[in-house]
Amino acid sequence: MDNFKVIEIKQSIYENNDIEAEKLREKLRMNNTFLLNLMSSPGSGKTTTLLRTIEQLKDEMGIGVMEADIDSDVDARIINNTGVKTIQLHTGGMCHLDAKMTSEGLDNLNADDLDFVVLENIGNLVCPAEFDTGATKSAMILSVPEGDDKPLKYPLMFTVVDVLLINKIDTLEVFDFDTEAVCKRARKLNPDINIFLISARTGEGIKAWTDWLRDQVLKAKK
Amino acid sequence: MDNFKVIEIKQSIYENNDIEAEKLREKLRMNNTFLLNLMSSPGSGKTTTLLRTIEQLKDEMGIGVMEADIDSDVDARIINNTGVKTIQLHTGGMCHLDAKMTSEGLDNLNADDLDFVVLENIGNLVCPAEFDTGATKSAMILSVPEGDDKPLKYPLMFTVVDVLLINKIDTLEVFDFDTEAVCKRARKLNPDINIFLISARTGEGIKAWTDWLRDQVLKAKK
Repeated sequence: MDNFKVIEIKQSIYENNDIEAEKLREKLRMNNTFLLNLMSSPGSGKTTTLLRTIEQLKDEMGIGVMEADIDSDVDARIINNTGVKTIQLHTGGMCHLDAKMTSEGLDNLNADDLDFVVLENIGNLVCPAEFDTGATKSAMILSVPEGDDKPLKYPLMFTVVDVLLINKIDTLEVFDFDTEAVCKRARKLNPDINIFLISARTGEGIKAWTDWLRDQVLKAKK
Repeated sequence: MDNFKVIEIKQSIYENNDIEAEKLREKLRMNNTFLLNLMSSPGSGKTTTLLRTIEQLKDEMGIGVMEADIDSDVDARIINNTGVKTIQLHTGGMCHLDAKMTSEGLDNLNADDLDFVVLENIGNLVCPAEFDTGATKSAMILSVPEGDDKPLKYPLMFTVVDVLLINKIDTLEVFDFDTEAVCKRARKLNPDINIFLISARTGEGIKAWTDWLRDQVLKAKK
């Protein structure tokens, strides 16, 4: 059957990928570079959140961004305007990044002298959750308009990340979204998850998030 | 290289899948059943749109719904309350449905006596676009909060669908969303695309969409 074929192949790739991911994490540690894998649905506000994050931290550390997209370079152009090192990764239809692609991206970014690099992954709550990119930490964004049932429907994503950013909280009045229920559902899947409520548009909650992030970047240097 | 392996396997599956999809479409035609493949990002409002659609059409035709999810049966329970035939398809982590899975779903739904069946695909703008499910027609939902750049970033999805539903237009004032730009970008990729502006929450625009749909279901019977 077709399906079984896919699963077998995927498993063998997973195994190779896990080894590559561990190698990359070790290399990042040696270089004192903190790599954040940022994931979400399309349109949840990854790029705007990233702009706010860069704004807060760029005077304190060397920052780089890898923008992964199936096509287009819309986001990379926006990020590039902030003055941080930016590259665009085109996946040619692939729905996720693996550790090898991430490693190639870092080589092209020339990331060895950077303190903090963000991989903005493909907008997708399914496939990116299945592949360890080798990042130091992973974060996901869930935006209010997407609904509070997402931890029930995409449990793996909520399980594998270190951080959940709940974005677009300035629109809470417009949508039927139970923040408490989301936090409860996310913590049931992942008791150690760090949750921050933010509005990338208004800037609300960004400080708490970037304070946590600064702490992580400094820890990576020890 | 890992990547090339994936692509090879994918291609062979595509070929088999295209044959299966054509077989299924022929079978649906023989049974006078119209199958709609409904795709979108997570949280764009597929289930609410479906509720409105069922409300408009259920007195005129036999309707069935297949709810595909990686996990959970939240949506299937909601749809089931409308009284239409409903089944839940669990993909066990798979990020899309192919024609064989769709065909199995239809058998389990016992769809031969139904006029109109909806496959609510996995919430994902990437992978479902790559696999022909064998559906009579395909539609996608883009919701206003996701942003107007999506045709640039997920071009394949906009290229393969017959219909684009722009949902949550009741929130246009809250978000920076250029409807005209989206229509222009979608039509550049897909000149024949049918576009409907809707709000599944308020019901705005639903009539035009269900009028089109009714017409398609009747055409499938000729």
